[in-house]
Amino acid sequence: MVLGAAESPVLSFDVGGTDIKAGLVDARGNVLGMRRVPTPLDSSRPGEAVLDRLAELAAELASEFPGSPARAAGIIVPGIVDSVAGVGVYSANLGWRDFPFTAEAEKRLGIPVAFDHDVRSAAAVEHSLGGSREFNDVVVMVVGTGIAAAVFSGGKPVTAGGFAGELGHAQVPDPDASPGGAGSTILEAVGSAGAIAKRYHRASGNRVNGARGVLLRANAGDALAARIWADAVDALAFTICQCVNIIGTEAVVIGGGLAEAGEELLEPLRARVDHILDFQRRPQLIRAQLGQDAGLLGAALNARALLGGKQ
Amino acid sequence: MVLGAAESPVLSFDVGGTDIKAGLVDARGNVLGMRRVPTPLDSSRPGEAVLDRLAELAAELASEFPGSPARAAGIIVPGIVDSVAGVGVYSANLGWRDFPFTAEAEKRLGIPVAFDHDVRSAAAVEHSLGGSREFNDVVVMVVGTGIAAAVFSGGKPVTAGGFAGELGHAQVPDPDASPGGAGSTILEAVGSAGAIAKRYHRASGNRVNGARGVLLRANAGDALAARIWADAVDALAFTICQCVNIIGTEAVVIGGGLAEAGEELLEPLRARVDHILDFQRRPQLIRAQLGQDAGLLGAALNARALLGGKQ
Repeated sequence: MVLGAAESPVLSFDVGGTDIKAGLVDARGNVLGMRRVPTPLDSSRPGEAVLDRLAELAAELASEFPGSPARAAGIIVPGIVDSVAGVGVYSANLGWRDFPFTAEAEKRLGIPVAFDHDVRSAAAVEHSLGGSREFNDVVVMVVGTGIAAAVFSGGKPVTAGGFAGELGHAQVPDPDASPGGAGSTILEAVGSAGAIAKRYHRASGNRVNGARGVLLRANAGDALAARIWADAVDALAFTICQCVNIIGTEAVVIGGGLAEAGEELLEPLRARVDHILDFQRRPQLIRAQLGQDAGLLGAALNARALLGGKQ
Repeated sequence: MVLGAAESPVLSFDVGGTDIKAGLVDARGNVLGMRRVPTPLDSSRPGEAVLDRLAELAAELASEFPGSPARAAGIIVPGIVDSVAGVGVYSANLGWRDFPFTAEAEKRLGIPVAFDHDVRSAAAVEHSLGGSREFNDVVVMVVGTGIAAAVFSGGKPVTAGGFAGELGHAQVPDPDASPGGAGSTILEAVGSAGAIAKRYHRASGNRVNGARGVLLRANAGDALAARIWADAVDALAFTICQCVNIIGTEAVVIGGGLAEAGEELLEPLRARVDHILDFQRRPQLIRAQLGQDAGLLGAALNARALLGGKQ
C-alpha cells in the first residue's frame, strides 16, 4: 500500500504499565500494523528502555509499510506528564522521574514527537467523538485496575503541568475505618475494579473473577459482595460530587473495565450522586464509547497536530 | 471634584447576604462615596427589591458627585451566577431563582451593567494583585460565616455556568459521625468560622466570641476547643487536597474572617495537607492580602471591562 503525502500516517505508541501498543495511524484514524508487546521494565534506565523498544517497533513498522513513511510520532504514557516541556515527570509503575521523553524520542526516531498523557489523550478522543461532546465541563474516568482521569473545563483540557486528573488518589471515606474513626482512604482503594475484587477476596477468602465476579455474586444474593459493590459506587459518587462542587462538572464519562457493567454501575451511581448533591446541577453519567484503541488514536491526533493538521 | 472622561468612574455594588456596599470607583481603583446599607429582603420579589435599592444608591451617588457621571456599573452577588447570560441562577440566602439581573439593572440605571459573582470577582482582583499572581492553577477561598470560592485553571477563571467553586458544599468526613458510621457532611458545616463557633457552643454549652474565641481557648489549653479547631483544619485540608488531585491546584489563597488567624491557621493546614498528599505537588497556602473592598474593586473592574478598558 502506498499513501499520498496528505494521507501520510503517523507513528502511534500507547505505553501502558503492562503493554505497549504500537501502530501506524492514517489520516482517517485507521490503525495499520497494530502490535502489542510487553513494556520493558528497567529500574536503572526506565525511560531509555521504553524508548529503545519504541525505536525497534518503529523500524519494524517502517519495513512492513515501506511506502508509507511516518512524518511524526505520538507517544503517550501514564503518570504525571508535562506535555509542554515534553517530560515524564513521574510514573509510579514504570519508574521514571523527570525523563525528557520528547527530546530522547526525537533522537531515536528522527521525526517530530508529540508526547502526552495516556488518559488525557484517549479522553480527548472520547470527549470529541463520544457521548459528552455537547458538554464543556467534563470528567473522563478510566476505572480499571487503577483509576485515571482527564478533566475538561470550558471545553479545554485542564493539565496543571500534568498534575490534574489524579482522581484515583483523591480522598474518600474509608468503608473499612475502625468504628469511631472518621478515616479516609483513596478512591482507587475502594472504587476501582481492582479494589472491588481485592476487598471481596480479603473479606470472604474467596477468589472471584474480578469486579465482574463480585457483581455476579451480589446479583445472586451474596450480601458481602453487594456491600463491596455499593462501597465502590459510594466512593465513585463521592469523587464525582467533588468534581461537581469544585469545577461544576456537567458530564462524567466512565470507561475502563468497570464500565463494562453498564447500567448496573451507572444506575446506582446516579442515585448516589443525586442523594449527595443538594442544589447543585446533576451531572450526566455516560458510559465511554471508544474501546481499547482510544489511546492509539489520541496519540496519533497529538502527532498529527505537530504536522499542522486540525484535530 | 470633576474628573476627565478617561477617568470617569464606574458605579460598583457588592450585594451581600447582610449588606450592600456601593461606591463610585475611579480608574485608579479609588472608591468615592462608599456606603453600606442593609440588603433588602423581599421573598416575593427578591431580585427587584435589591435592584430598586441599587437605583436609589446610584441616584444618591450621582447627586453627591454631579461632575462625575458613571458610564457603567458593576453588580456582584452571591450564589450561583451565570455572568454570560446575566442571570442570578440561585441564591439560598437572598432567595432569587433565574432572575435577569443585567437586563433589569440596565432598565433602572440606564447604563451598561456588568453582573457577576461576588467571590469570583473579588478573587480575580486578589489573584491579579495578591500573593498568588505568579500561579496559574489557583483556588481562592473566602472562609467566614460560610465558605465561598473561586477557581482558576491555566490562569483563567473556571465558571461552568456559575456552578464551579461551591467548595463550601463539597463533602468532607463528618467528625461528629456516630461511631462506626463513615459519615460525611459539607465543608461549611465543619471548616467555616461560623461552624467553629457553633460546634464549640453546641459541645460545651459556652458561648464564645466566634472562631477567634475558640482559638483563644484552644491556646489556653481547652482540649475541646483545640479539637474543634483541628476538625476545621482537617476539613479545609481535605477539600484543598481534592482540588490538588482533581485540577492540580498549585496555590490556595485563604481570605475571610478565619484567615485573620494567619499562621495559626495556615501552619497546621500546611502540615495536614502535606500529610494527606502522597506524590502530589504541595500547594502554596497563602493568606489573602486584599480586604473588605476587594468585592467593590472586582465589580468595578467588571464594569470597566464593558467600557473597553483593559483589566
